Amino acid sequence: MASMRYDLYYWPEIQGRGEFIRLALEVAGASYLDVARGTKKGQGVEAMFKLMRGESNIAADQTRLPFAPPFLKAGEELIAQTAHILAFLGPALKLAPREAKAARFTQQLQLTLSDLVVEAHDTHHPIGSGLYYEDQKAAAKKRSKIFIAERIPKFLDYFEQVLARNPANRPGRPVHLVGRALTYADLSLFQVIEGLRYAFPKSMRRREHAWPNVIALRDQVAAHPRIAAYLASPRRIAFNEMGIFRRYPELDR
Amino acid sequence: MASMRYDLYYWPEIQGRGEFIRLALEVAGASYLDVARGTKKGQGVEAMFKLMRGESNIAADQTRLPFAPPFLKAGEELIAQTAHILAFLGPALKLAPREAKAARFTQQLQLTLSDLVVEAHDTHHPIGSGLYYEDQKAAAKKRSKIFIAERIPKFLDYFEQVLARNPANRPGRPVHLVGRALTYADLSLFQVIEGLRYAFPKSMRRREHAWPNVIALRDQVAAHPRIAAYLASPRRIAFNEMGIFRRYPELDR
Repeated sequence: MASMRYDLYYWPEIQGRGEFIRLALEVAGASYLDVARGTKKGQGVEAMFKLMRGESNIAADQTRLPFAPPFLKAGEELIAQTAHILAFLGPALKLAPREAKAARFTQQLQLTLSDLVVEAHDTHHPIGSGLYYEDQKAAAKKRSKIFIAERIPKFLDYFEQVLARNPANRPGRPVHLVGRALTYADLSLFQVIEGLRYAFPKSMRRREHAWPNVIALRDQVAAHPRIAAYLASPRRIAFNEMGIFRRYPELDR
Repeated sequence: MASMRYDLYYWPEIQGRGEFIRLALEVAGASYLDVARGTKKGQGVEAMFKLMRGESNIAADQTRLPFAPPFLKAGEELIAQTAHILAFLGPALKLAPREAKAARFTQQLQLTLSDLVVEAHDTHHPIGSGLYYEDQKAAAKKRSKIFIAERIPKFLDYFEQVLARNPANRPGRPVHLVGRALTYADLSLFQVIEGLRYAFPKSMRRREHAWPNVIALRDQVAAHPRIAAYLASPRRIAFNEMGIFRRYPELDR
């Protein structure tokens, strides 16, 4: 349990990239405030914008502003970029290996998951984030077809192989991406599988048998008492069609 | 000057993501081998594939394989993901601040540049990397138009602001993104400007006046003796239409 209080800044209506941070904070039982979802003075989306623009009067380092949410406020430091926030939180939340090479590999895997997340987003927004989905549906269909047929397998084959090559993983025991304990990368792989299942349920059902270790890890994380409690709580925002993983049946072929 | 010998693995015919690593190694005068460009035994693209697939017989940690190039071999450790490789090299090459918060902000900026690089790539390949440009030209035109009008300004306005807010930057003195010394993020911002100028020369000429500090930093890096020598050497691969930044005049509007 971390003693520091963290302020997480992220869009209040979606899981999105913020969810990777929320899962880490939740599993560690950390004390945190999801600021943009708050309704008190100094909270809400406007507070997030003010801080990003250097217009906030709360105590924060205004010489080093983030480019975009999610970002974390830890003391007066503002830390942005999902994988980078997790690299920062990892040691404090005991969600990263202590040994340097293992810690680096954990972050490398997280960055690889970040790449997958960008591609998952672009399945429904291949032309531009600022345009409506309806105005790029034809391109979205083409991109999704390739994403499902080529990119999901390329990424998940890779993570399956990482799990198979981790010498600490033994038959009949819990599996992990790095070493013998839960890391933030394990949590993020869980979240990616949840997202892919939400966005592409038919495609995932047909293909998941190829990734038994990945699915075993997903199941383990889902069964973790703190994660299970979080997923059942109102703090877990439901998947929806404003987030990164969106369910448009015409893209799931 | 670092004493360790590094092996860089990246596609031999393009600058691509490997170039961010090459610039850091070059400016530090580090000893490195660009393995996939080599023609000796154990070099070339096939050597890169073998190592990535865990089929190589060179001494490397085969339990932690990279997902994709670029990756660096440092001793037996294989380190992938461009920004992550730079975070690893930063201290050894003296291209990262020693103070922890400044080092974190440097990496945060690098990850933001990585996001821009993905978007620059997707201007010509919005549907799929495996398809020909010609087969996605209509979508590429739409995406490029938005990239030029909205995304380049959003990113470069941000970096301009970072330079303006860095308290170590003073009129008439060299500018840096973090602190008062050259970092790998400075080198990468130079490379991004070079790439954007190559891909979108007309658009950049019209707009660059809005980012005077960014351009001043670009000019400084270009004038660094080791960088100037590198750029003039055969080690610098020319921009071309296989890389991330490609010049298709129909996309530069």
